[in-house]
Formats: sequence, structure tokens, C-alpha cells
Amino acid sequence: MRRNDPSKAASPQVIFSGIQPTGVPHIGNYLGALQQWAKLQNEASPKTTLLFSIVDLHAITVNQNPRQLRNACHQMLAALLAVGLDSKRSIIFFQSDVDAHEKLMWILSCRAQMGNLSRMTQWKACLAHRSKLNLSDNAPPVEALLNTELELGLYSYPVLQAADVLVHRATHVPVGHDQAQHLEFARKCARTFNHRYGTIFQLPETILSPAKRVMSLTQPHLKMSKSHQDPRSRILISDSTEEIAQKVKTALTDSVSGVSYDPVKRPGVSNLIEIMHHFRADGASCKDIARDCENLTMRAFKEQVAKCIDEHLFEIRQRYEELMGKEKEGYLREVAESGAVRARESAAETMHLVWDAVGLGGFQSFAKKLD
Amino acid sequence: MRRNDPSKAASPQVIFSGIQPTGVPHIGNYLGALQQWAKLQNEASPKTTLLFSIVDLHAITVNQNPRQLRNACHQMLAALLAVGLDSKRSIIFFQSDVDAHEKLMWILSCRAQMGNLSRMTQWKACLAHRSKLNLSDNAPPVEALLNTELELGLYSYPVLQAADVLVHRATHVPVGHDQAQHLEFARKCARTFNHRYGTIFQLPETILSPAKRVMSLTQPHLKMSKSHQDPRSRILISDSTEEIAQKVKTALTDSVSGVSYDPVKRPGVSNLIEIMHHFRADGASCKDIARDCENLTMRAFKEQVAKCIDEHLFEIRQRYEELMGKEKEGYLREVAESGAVRARESAAETMHLVWDAVGLGGFQSFAKKLD
Repeated sequence: MRRNDPSKAASPQVIFSGIQPTGVPHIGNYLGALQQWAKLQNEASPKTTLLFSIVDLHAITVNQNPRQLRNACHQMLAALLAVGLDSKRSIIFFQSDVDAHEKLMWILSCRAQMGNLSRMTQWKACLAHRSKLNLSDNAPPVEALLNTELELGLYSYPVLQAADVLVHRATHVPVGHDQAQHLEFARKCARTFNHRYGTIFQLPETILSPAKRVMSLTQPHLKMSKSHQDPRSRILISDSTEEIAQKVKTALTDSVSGVSYDPVKRPGVSNLIEIMHHFRADGASCKDIARDCENLTMRAFKEQVAKCIDEHLFEIRQRYEELMGKEKEGYLREVAESGAVRARESAAETMHLVWDAVGLGGFQSFAKKLD
Repeated sequence: MRRNDPSKAASPQVIFSGIQPTGVPHIGNYLGALQQWAKLQNEASPKTTLLFSIVDLHAITVNQNPRQLRNACHQMLAALLAVGLDSKRSIIFFQSDVDAHEKLMWILSCRAQMGNLSRMTQWKACLAHRSKLNLSDNAPPVEALLNTELELGLYSYPVLQAADVLVHRATHVPVGHDQAQHLEFARKCARTFNHRYGTIFQLPETILSPAKRVMSLTQPHLKMSKSHQDPRSRILISDSTEEIAQKVKTALTDSVSGVSYDPVKRPGVSNLIEIMHHFRADGASCKDIARDCENLTMRAFKEQVAKCIDEHLFEIRQRYEELMGKEKEGYLREVAESGAVRARESAAETMHLVWDAVGLGGFQSFAKKLD
């Protein structure tokens, strides 16, 4: 479901989205976000600006191994290019290369109310997961706020996210359902600022992508995720034909004979059908696919699923491997550097207006007329 | 009382301090901080680095008129030079000109615990003042945290303050008594980071200045402050001979005849004696001064006080007026710009180490060897 169709807006559009550097994306990341980013890029009007950020500053709200984080950043950049983002057309950059994100975050912080942040559900979920607490969304866990386990970064994360979007004056933000509350908060930050200092920020609109939830291959009641221990639970976009075949082969299904689509009673089989549905280009529905395959053995069905995934990922994998090869290291660096330069320019325009409105800007403010 | 004498340390010292841009400083600011800064500068070893920042980003944690804030920034810069800071010797800069302060703040935020921030007394005092609440320091006002009146900026202020100090790897920080808790928090941030990522930060030591509390001329039970409504309550370092005479003349004293030093029973008169004590170069104690003046009428005594202040401020005022004159506008801009350049260099050294340790740094990290 799209709440707003960006093609209908009048003034030039700015599309912004971010992804955490989790390393090589799995097919859940790909179907849920990256595939849509490439589609938005390829279908956008020439006047539309597109920015895609690897949000490494968000990644450190949880504990990270520095060396692994650096690797994961490189892998994610190669992956974005491999899935079809074009660094000439879109501005692809690392968040940590653009100082204005944190600068605007501070300015927004001075207006952002703790009451609103305390109602955000994501830090609660994260904290609950970590501390094995049972936190209800309706009852703000006041004690948890004062819990020494909660870091300021995790709590204030939505303000940095608001700055990410607002500093580029994004008009449209493709986000997953879990981020809709944070985007609403970003709009609130923008309204509060505009109300106090005059209209500088766009109120960004959500582009909710068509729900493409991919479940774990080993625990099909859970979303496919990098944080699950078993690597067989997910297929990475860089996986070889053999790895894909092996992972699908060992995917948890059930002992019912034949193939049928029933997400409640047969979550494992249904997840494989949905994956096939997303990867097939012919528009076949899950029920169509289930009917086509109903008489296959589970082994034969899984072979078809693996083949379908492999065919779709073939070119992406080739590009990814090429980009991660030693000879392309300089190229990735160039892409990151030119993305940083363009993102800094985009942010600088906004920050000049913000400085001017707030009365800041250090020595730059000496150019302003004084009383 | 000095907890640490910087002249005794072995490795090169880095002295950092900040002041909010409150406009022209009053004699309370001057005696409490600026006079000491100039002394530190003039007595420092040639190897010592001194940084003095006008912390405009801290100023916006409370509501500010943008035009007045910009003026106040210019006035504070002229005042720092007027009281004797030398922009060639010391690095004098606006906080908002150096992006690394907010950048390091975010990194520290990801480790800073809400439990510690909730125990800080300054945001509570500020909130209590604003909301007329009666908050005890011992009972953390949990409800206030969730109060929609508390902004994230005011609450997270100590983390930015920690970043201010740590990003320049300051060894010594002259602060007032009210900031001692925040500096302890900065040390905690440094220890936490060093423990996780290896020793990068200095643990900054406090230079507590000799207590020179100057009280309001109209309400001598309160500290002299810019936030008091009546401008006659304070003497600015730019005040003319006539203004000083007039303000001292209307200072609240009492109807006891003669002059004596008794801060409890005679707060107004004793405040004037203390001001005279601070401004006289001859080392006369408050009791000495009271004895010298005991037979004077209040009017004659006040004339002596005014004369003593005026003599001390004469040169400062002249330099201040010259610096604020139109022909010096370009000069102040140059000072601010060259201070910004030098402060950015100082911060960049630290940030390279921090990026490297944390695993961030966007395109710069491509220079690092990968697995």
C-alpha cells in the first residue's frame, strides 16, 4: 500500500532512505527494501533527487565489533550497487561522512520532547529483547528509562533519524512498517521547528512498500534476520547456486504430503511459496504457485524454489563479487567519496537556512547584518 | 582551591573551557571565569595548548531569540579579546563552527547511560525553575523525565559538554563549582570509551577557580546574573564610568551606619566590599577594606567602590568598544575563522583515532586493511 504516490506531487521530489550496514543483505532485505529502491530510482522523473544512505551511525546504538562493522559497511555499499542502484543517478553515501546529520540532530534535540521519545516503541522492544523484560507498548516503562542498561543513543535514535530525512529536505521516504512511527516523529520535529523559526523543512511523506515479509528458513514464525544465529536461516544475495540449494533443502517444512499455501498451518512451505512468488517475474500468485506445485514431492518443490531464487540472484551475485574483488577497492572508495561530496552539498543548503533561522553559525554569522 | 596544578603535570597540557554567549559579560562572569582564563593563558608554558570556546550550541537548550543570540555571540567574542585572551596564543572559537563536537557527542551517546544522566542536577534545576516544581536532588523526578516540558537537548547537554572537552583531549578544564558534576560525567564517558576501544581519551582534570562569587546589586542574596530582569542588578564590563557610578549608587544596602563586613547580616554592603577586594590589586582582605572604610558614609563608600571597579575596567572597556566598532567587524570575523580552523584541526586528530577505534569513518575507512 502506498500512502502517497510520489509521481503525483508537483514540486521536485527528494526521496531519501537509509539502511544499516549489516553486511551482505539477505533476500528479506532485498525484497523488503533494496529492490524497491532500485525500482524507485529507475522509474523516477529526471528532476527527482534520490539519496540512499548506509546509516553506520545508527548501527553503533548496539554493540559492534569495529573490524566487522567496517567490513559490513563495505559489503553493504557493494550490495547497493549490485542490486541496481546507480551511483551517478542516486546519491549513495555513508551517514558518518556527512557531519550535518549530527549537527541537525542537536538542533532538533533542543526542541524534541522526552515525552514523545518515551512513547517510541522501538527502543522499548530493543531493551526488552536485551533485558528479557516484558514491556507493554501502552505503559511507558518509566523504570526502564532510569535503568542503567538503556543508553542515550538507543533512546535518542529517532531524532538522528529525523535529522537524516530533514537535512536533505526529503519529500518522500520509503520505510518499512516498523519505521512508520519514527517518520511520524520526524514530521513532528519538522512542524515544531517550522512553527518556531519559519518554514524550512518539508514534511516528508511515507512510501510504504508492498508488504514483502520473508520468514526465516529454519524458524518460519520469525522474520528472516541477520541476528539469528543459524546462517542457514537466511539466503544472502551473494550466496552461490550450491549454497542456495543447500539452504532451501534444509529449510524447515512439515510432514504433510504435497504442496499447499496455508501460512497459519504450514508456515515453512508457505514461506517458500511466497519467496517464489516475489522472485518470479510472471505475476503468479501464491495460490497459483501452490496449485502448479501441488503434486510435487517436497524435494522437487524445494529444487524449483532454489532454482527460481538462483536465477533472480545470478546477475546480482556476479556484480557483487566483481565489486568486492581487490581490483574494485578503489572504485568503491570513489563511489563513497563522491556520494559523500554530493550528500554534503545537499545537506549544506539546508544547514545554511537552519543556522540563519536559529541564530547560529559561528564566524559565518558575521556576514549577517547586526542590530 | 585548585584540585590540580597544571604546571606540575609532565606531558604537554591542553586547557579547555567554554562560556555561553550571553552577550557582554558582567563582572561576575569576569571575576568568576574570564579573568582566570587570561591568567592561565599568560602563565602557561609555551608547550601548553589553550582552547576557549563560545558554546553557542549549549545556548539553544533554552529558548533564544535568533537575532539576539547572534548579537550576543559577537559581543562575547569581542569581550574575550578585550579581557586579554590573545587569539594568536589561544584557540578561541565558536562551538558551532566545529562539527566534531556533535559527532563525538553521538558516539559518546551510544555508551552514555540514561541512569547517569538522570542523576545530573543541572537539568533538574533548570526544569524546576521553569515549571516551578520542587525537585529534590536525591529523588530523581521520574515523572519529569516523561514530562512533555523536558526537551532532549537540555537532558543530554552533559554529553555534548563531555564531547567538547574530550574531542580536544583536554588535560585540564577550569570550571565553576556548578559544573564539577558534569566534568565527572565527562571522565566517566572517557573511561567507558577507553575501556571498550582502547585508551584514546585523556581523563580531564578539574581546575576549580578560587571562589569569586559576585552577588546581584539589587538582590544581594542571589548571584549576579544575566537572567535577572533589572539591568541595574549587574555591572557589565562595557559599562561607562557613569553607568558604574549610577549602578553602585543604587545598589541595595541597609540602614546600619558605617561600613562593616558581615555577609550574613549585611549582604549588600559585604558584596560591595568583596567586589572591591577582587578588583584591588593590593591583596587587601575584605576585613582590611571594611576597616579602612568603617567611618565613611554609605555614599562615600559607594563612590570608592565605583572608582575601584571603573579603574580596573577602563582598559577592558576601551578594547571592547574598539573591537565592536564597525571598522573591526572584519577583524572579529578573521579571529573567529582562524579559531575555527585551528579548533577543527585539534578535533580532527582525535576523531581519526575515534573513527578507527569504533569502525566508522565512511569512505575514509576504505584505506584500512580488511579481512
